[in-house]
Amino acid sequence: MDETRPKVRLYVSSPLAAGGVATLDAGQAHYLRNVMRLSPGDGVRLFNGVDGEWLATVDGLSRKGGGVTVGERLRAQTADADLWLLFAPVKRAPLDLLVQKAVELGVSRLQPVLTRRTVVERVNIDRLDAIAVEAAEQSQRMSMPEVAEPVELAAALDDWPARRRLYFCDTGEAPPMAEALASDAPGSPGAVLIGPEGGFDPGERQWLAALPYAAPVSLGPRILRAETAALAALVLWQSAVGDWRSGA
Amino acid sequence: MDETRPKVRLYVSSPLAAGGVATLDAGQAHYLRNVMRLSPGDGVRLFNGVDGEWLATVDGLSRKGGGVTVGERLRAQTADADLWLLFAPVKRAPLDLLVQKAVELGVSRLQPVLTRRTVVERVNIDRLDAIAVEAAEQSQRMSMPEVAEPVELAAALDDWPARRRLYFCDTGEAPPMAEALASDAPGSPGAVLIGPEGGFDPGERQWLAALPYAAPVSLGPRILRAETAALAALVLWQSAVGDWRSGA
Repeated sequence: MDETRPKVRLYVSSPLAAGGVATLDAGQAHYLRNVMRLSPGDGVRLFNGVDGEWLATVDGLSRKGGGVTVGERLRAQTADADLWLLFAPVKRAPLDLLVQKAVELGVSRLQPVLTRRTVVERVNIDRLDAIAVEAAEQSQRMSMPEVAEPVELAAALDDWPARRRLYFCDTGEAPPMAEALASDAPGSPGAVLIGPEGGFDPGERQWLAALPYAAPVSLGPRILRAETAALAALVLWQSAVGDWRSGA
Repeated sequence: MDETRPKVRLYVSSPLAAGGVATLDAGQAHYLRNVMRLSPGDGVRLFNGVDGEWLATVDGLSRKGGGVTVGERLRAQTADADLWLLFAPVKRAPLDLLVQKAVELGVSRLQPVLTRRTVVERVNIDRLDAIAVEAAEQSQRMSMPEVAEPVELAAALDDWPARRRLYFCDTGEAPPMAEALASDAPGSPGAVLIGPEGGFDPGERQWLAALPYAAPVSLGPRILRAETAALAALVLWQSAVGDWRSGA
């Protein structure tokens, strides 16, 4: 990374173009003013998931928000890998961690799903969204993943696109995930499904295994916590199919 | 896992053999009595990293400790992969997470190393050791990884075994880690080295790259936090070289 570029990098929803202005919300203005100690004239970087990354100059910061003027484009927009994570919600600390790490690892969509053994049913989407935004800003991602509202597992798989292979982590005699991934075309869309701490119930496992686009996979001989399994599966997918490959 | 086996699984340092007795420390006795609500006659599982996993029956639990009688052997001892993790210490929360996840992922040795840009120099080895024990118990590991005292990076690499390939994560033009791993013989010893948040300094990178057993690798196009990079590298190593392979 070019060390002369501003360190602060913010996600905004407004369009970005040279000479344009962008507005910052109260939280962003507070962060720039009180945490990063920026003043009018200081530089920041902005991205919106569509127009690339831009240099911008702070015009003003108040308690209610702020404004910046957009300067030159620093990076063209790039497409991130097309990777969904479906996960049964876990407790707050591991859930926050899961979302932060999944965003760093490049998922494009986070979908909480309710399974038969799911214990935690309430999910604060606003909190997860804020964690996702911060992780995207810090990881230098060019896109912002969607954090979807929780749905029943069956509903999440309704109308599933046939080309999107769904890997679900199973404790049985499933093949190692790296082996299963070898048959995927590089750059194809994918998804990882992680069950709750208690695993999928036998009926769910049978149903999942029968879906034409779903493949059970194993992640080694030890028992992994749900969030560890999710991160491991995302890493293996990105490495074999996604944007961690050479020239991807 | 056999659902009829006791859920509680403890690491002990005493030898384990049928009919023998094992002592529990005050913390373990407290956990069995006050957290898990066990009483004399209840079953637990024990492992010591050498003799396999054993069924045992609680004889007595007091504030000072406890005793159990060892019954039948449930699992023979197995060898875990030979994988070291060398890491520059980070702040407390990500460090605790790193140790927990690394143990789940099957590392055999955790070595904190001090690099030129390492900011956090104090490491509470007792706390990390307790986290490692709990993670090993819960992940059904058969071995207990060593948590070593922090040393300077150069000292950690002194007398390095030539056969143990050391992967270090680099922000430059390094090849994807999966490509670099392809030349390793399955089951060979390995190591992952993760630098501090600020990365290795240029002199360190040059020195590392010149070591005959060291290989720089990349982990995708985004900037990963130190602990995320460590976990990703461990996952890729276990999948390609370690015990996540078929028949490993």
